[in-house]
Amino acid sequence: MPKQVDHRERRETIARALWRVVEQRGIAHASVREVAQEAGISHGAVQHYFATREEMLVFAMDFASEQTSLRVAERVAELGDAPHPRDVLRVTLTEMLPLHPEARATSRMSAAYVLEALHDAHIHARAREGLTHGRDLVEDLVRQAITDGHIDPDRDPAIETNLLLALTGLTPLVELGVIEPREATTTIAHHLDRLFTNRP
Amino acid sequence: MPKQVDHRERRETIARALWRVVEQRGIAHASVREVAQEAGISHGAVQHYFATREEMLVFAMDFASEQTSLRVAERVAELGDAPHPRDVLRVTLTEMLPLHPEARATSRMSAAYVLEALHDAHIHARAREGLTHGRDLVEDLVRQAITDGHIDPDRDPAIETNLLLALTGLTPLVELGVIEPREATTTIAHHLDRLFTNRP
Repeated sequence: MPKQVDHRERRETIARALWRVVEQRGIAHASVREVAQEAGISHGAVQHYFATREEMLVFAMDFASEQTSLRVAERVAELGDAPHPRDVLRVTLTEMLPLHPEARATSRMSAAYVLEALHDAHIHARAREGLTHGRDLVEDLVRQAITDGHIDPDRDPAIETNLLLALTGLTPLVELGVIEPREATTTIAHHLDRLFTNRP
Repeated sequence: MPKQVDHRERRETIARALWRVVEQRGIAHASVREVAQEAGISHGAVQHYFATREEMLVFAMDFASEQTSLRVAERVAELGDAPHPRDVLRVTLTEMLPLHPEARATSRMSAAYVLEALHDAHIHARAREGLTHGRDLVEDLVRQAITDGHIDPDRDPAIETNLLLALTGLTPLVELGVIEPREATTTIAHHLDRLFTNRP
């Protein structure tokens, strides 16, 4: 189905242009007009792929989440067969911080999307669903690690999951240059070291 | 100096109008025109108090930080004389989350300001300065707690400070309704319980 592939590719090109607008100028500038200009295509062409600005934003965010998941999957694959859950969490959380250009683009898209969600019921529902799904994946990993004896069974899986997701709160510190990227990754490593007390 | 007091009060009124615009519609709408409308005063009157939109934004953020510090000081005063550093950190971190209307207003202002900083060198410098100062205060508290035997001396104060500030990363989970406010405060309490291992 070459036509569908082309359609998808074109939407991804527009989504990446939207990421650049958000990263460099802020989501306030992510209008169909400015995104079309950034993508180097006509206003009408963008409207052919996205009926509304909101539809374009939602797709761009879904695409950012997918690309982040892909990057995490690649990093996890590099860990070899049966990686330790501590290392899976380390690469997952590290990849969510703005520590390299692609991660910075998806991180800024995500931060802007959360604020957009506060004034748009549809985006709120989508963002909530996405974050709930991500949180569930992390909690499953924590529960499995407890079952497998990697994490002390006295730990509360829901609270540990919240603490792990809270580590994305290092983002403003990194973005504003208050801490160095290396300090952020060291902070994550220390937190994981203490969580995985039963590490063999 | 009644004139200066009035000047300050007027600026605070405008700042609060700007918070409402940011909270309800997003910082993209925080123009002099929309803020004037929200404050119920003329465009020209706002321009009398703030020469530019940026000056208005910077003041509104400084005012949000001051009001947050005041709320924290009030909560700390309620703890009585010589409060335990664990409780000081608990009320400080809790007050930074959007758990009541005033805290939601300052939290959203702060989140939007960080994103605005990424595209504005002056705001970036101010935001960095503010966050560095806040981080220093928390690190001083952690170091003192280690000296006083409340926290294990093996803990690294810089890393523990980063982990404490990362707890503001619970904000998107609360804002999107992924976790309940009570789960956020329980998560903070658990983290502090483990940090203050030497608690008498």
